[in-house]
Amino acid sequence: MNVASFISTFDAQRGSAGFDDYKDVMEIIEHVRSDGDRALHDYTAQFDNQTLDTFKVDKAALKDSYDAISSEEREALETIKRRIEHYQKSIKYTDMDHGEFRYVYHPLEKIGVYVPGGTALYPSSVLMTVVPALVAGVKEIHVVTPTFEENNITFAALYICGIENVYKVGGAQAIAALAYGTQTVPKVDKIVGPGNYYVALAKRLLFGEVGIDMIAGPSEILIYVDQDAHIDAIVYDLFAQAEHDANARTFLISEDESIIKKIEERLEQMLANQPRSSIIRASIKDNHYAVVDSQEALISMINHIAPEHVSIQHRDADRIIRNIKYAGAVFNGYYSPEAIGDYAAGPSHVLPTDKTGRFSHGLNVNDFLTSHAVISLEKTTYEDIVEPAKTIARREQLDAHYQSLNIRTE
Amino acid sequence: MNVASFISTFDAQRGSAGFDDYKDVMEIIEHVRSDGDRALHDYTAQFDNQTLDTFKVDKAALKDSYDAISSEEREALETIKRRIEHYQKSIKYTDMDHGEFRYVYHPLEKIGVYVPGGTALYPSSVLMTVVPALVAGVKEIHVVTPTFEENNITFAALYICGIENVYKVGGAQAIAALAYGTQTVPKVDKIVGPGNYYVALAKRLLFGEVGIDMIAGPSEILIYVDQDAHIDAIVYDLFAQAEHDANARTFLISEDESIIKKIEERLEQMLANQPRSSIIRASIKDNHYAVVDSQEALISMINHIAPEHVSIQHRDADRIIRNIKYAGAVFNGYYSPEAIGDYAAGPSHVLPTDKTGRFSHGLNVNDFLTSHAVISLEKTTYEDIVEPAKTIARREQLDAHYQSLNIRTE
Repeated sequence: MNVASFISTFDAQRGSAGFDDYKDVMEIIEHVRSDGDRALHDYTAQFDNQTLDTFKVDKAALKDSYDAISSEEREALETIKRRIEHYQKSIKYTDMDHGEFRYVYHPLEKIGVYVPGGTALYPSSVLMTVVPALVAGVKEIHVVTPTFEENNITFAALYICGIENVYKVGGAQAIAALAYGTQTVPKVDKIVGPGNYYVALAKRLLFGEVGIDMIAGPSEILIYVDQDAHIDAIVYDLFAQAEHDANARTFLISEDESIIKKIEERLEQMLANQPRSSIIRASIKDNHYAVVDSQEALISMINHIAPEHVSIQHRDADRIIRNIKYAGAVFNGYYSPEAIGDYAAGPSHVLPTDKTGRFSHGLNVNDFLTSHAVISLEKTTYEDIVEPAKTIARREQLDAHYQSLNIRTE
Repeated sequence: MNVASFISTFDAQRGSAGFDDYKDVMEIIEHVRSDGDRALHDYTAQFDNQTLDTFKVDKAALKDSYDAISSEEREALETIKRRIEHYQKSIKYTDMDHGEFRYVYHPLEKIGVYVPGGTALYPSSVLMTVVPALVAGVKEIHVVTPTFEENNITFAALYICGIENVYKVGGAQAIAALAYGTQTVPKVDKIVGPGNYYVALAKRLLFGEVGIDMIAGPSEILIYVDQDAHIDAIVYDLFAQAEHDANARTFLISEDESIIKKIEERLEQMLANQPRSSIIRASIKDNHYAVVDSQEALISMINHIAPEHVSIQHRDADRIIRNIKYAGAVFNGYYSPEAIGDYAAGPSHVLPTDKTGRFSHGLNVNDFLTSHAVISLEKTTYEDIVEPAKTIARREQLDAHYQSLNIRTE
């Protein structure tokens, strides 16, 4: 496939913003807004088949989950937590002070974190959303999750993070609860974390009412290889992306057609032995393999689609990476497979997908800060700039603005 | 009014997220998405009473507008533009390089700016949105505005900024055009700038399809004074807020009841002579005057409502300002009235309103950058962290992740 048809295929596959399902989600939001906990009980019975006395998880249940995991898992989660803390601290913004102007940052007061539930539980996603908020200094973290099992690893990971406010509720109703507050779930300032389609619609509808991190779509990776690539490692990297779900997208790119052929052949052989081979097969059928005739073509492709993950396994990696403008995250070299980023490298694995990396970035500590300017002008500075300001105020016919400026020159 | 009732009144007045008008806006968006320019022509005839041959403004028309303003206005706009540039450069983020981790910033490629039209034109709003994007290094800036007059000051300000892509279209249809592209208006990566109610709804519905800056609401100011406040100056500061529109909100706070009384009395006297007295009167009737019994109470009030503008005209300003966490922007002292921030101080006057300063910030150069991490691990670092990662991958039953990690330890 050449680059032009690659890009047009990609664009044609982009999700539609069709509004068909909004009505249902609006109804859910309005119901939660007016009826609070009662609405949450209704929806949790209807969608999750659960009848709960209370949504709030008992502190003891979090501790029980922690006690139930192996000491190896406990240490793994604690080590990973420290890695994430270390990285997030290193990129945290600090106040700027230029005398008459200061620009200052403060942690958000209350946030909500959506943690997906269901049969597959991902403790790594707990760490990748909660730890950046902790590093930011957020005081109140409220976690919603449709996780109803006792002794589960999601609760164990939350216990390790010191989280005490956890609510067993999911879907659009959980987002609405965090946006407006109910008797049990408090109103928060910002909601983060990936969820299903209805969670995404609710987040979009409530953008502005509360802060929203991003709208998550299916995961993607673009891997660029030269002819020296470690074939089995690349196959596992492709599988690691594809095993997430049937809609995950994998792009394998090279200037060298023969290495792509070799990887494809080996992939077919290795696929049979994969535990999640049916998901991988469903996902991989939409694989994009492309031969590019120059690194410029590769770079223009990357900057066009802004892949969630870009993995450069190529002798010219440094030169290529310097020219990448838009991506969720870039992984450079043999010892930086995307899987290490999913767990333990440091940056959050909550990353923009489906071209949204062209305008947004992966979740990080700074998304849990807010900021404002403090303006303290000296008389002389004021006198330097007041005349142009008065001229424009007059032209805009905002007379009180003009007077407010003018009285200070008298 | 005491602080508790002040806050509950404020919260009760917050805008509803009622979904009644969404259906109309969804229809507009879908129509523009499927029919492009034809839909824009329909809506511009219907809502703006204009039949245009083309939406694109001729370059010569921008120059004509520039030639039509006075040389004083031209110089005022140019001076203000330089002030904004200077400030925005001073807060622009730069790349971080920590060896195995880099965190890099790039300007967005294409943005859309919404500039309100109508009878009152605000060239200051052009500068406050376009200049931060120019400083960021955005290559393509597309401006939409329902401004149909020849030789208008909006076009003059755009000409001064070197903007060539201007389209005479407004409302939800202009936002939809920028989000999906039409024959004339290109698809952009992010849309910024305040607009009316329907513009705000369209921005909310298209959040995630494109980047969106914020949802703008009515303007607000909170002014805190001590008994030495310059009474006439404070009255003009209140008027300057109130003259924007009837929904603008003004809060005047002090520990000293007598100064509030004096300002209120003087305000009544001065109101009669204001050119925009009817708007001011409509806005000011919802004025909130409050006596606080401590600076702690003031600070808790400010942090609760996160006013768009906070003006501290008080001998303890420094101590108070150190404790303000949430605000659109803070103005400190006699020579920093809010009106100077509206025009010429440097920070954009596009600021979060209606409590959204608790999670978002004023528009600035960094909103026109996007960023990502580059991860280049050494073998030894990889070996330090791979075991915990493998442990969690196994627990999450993501076997290919495990294999992708494990093969690099062999």
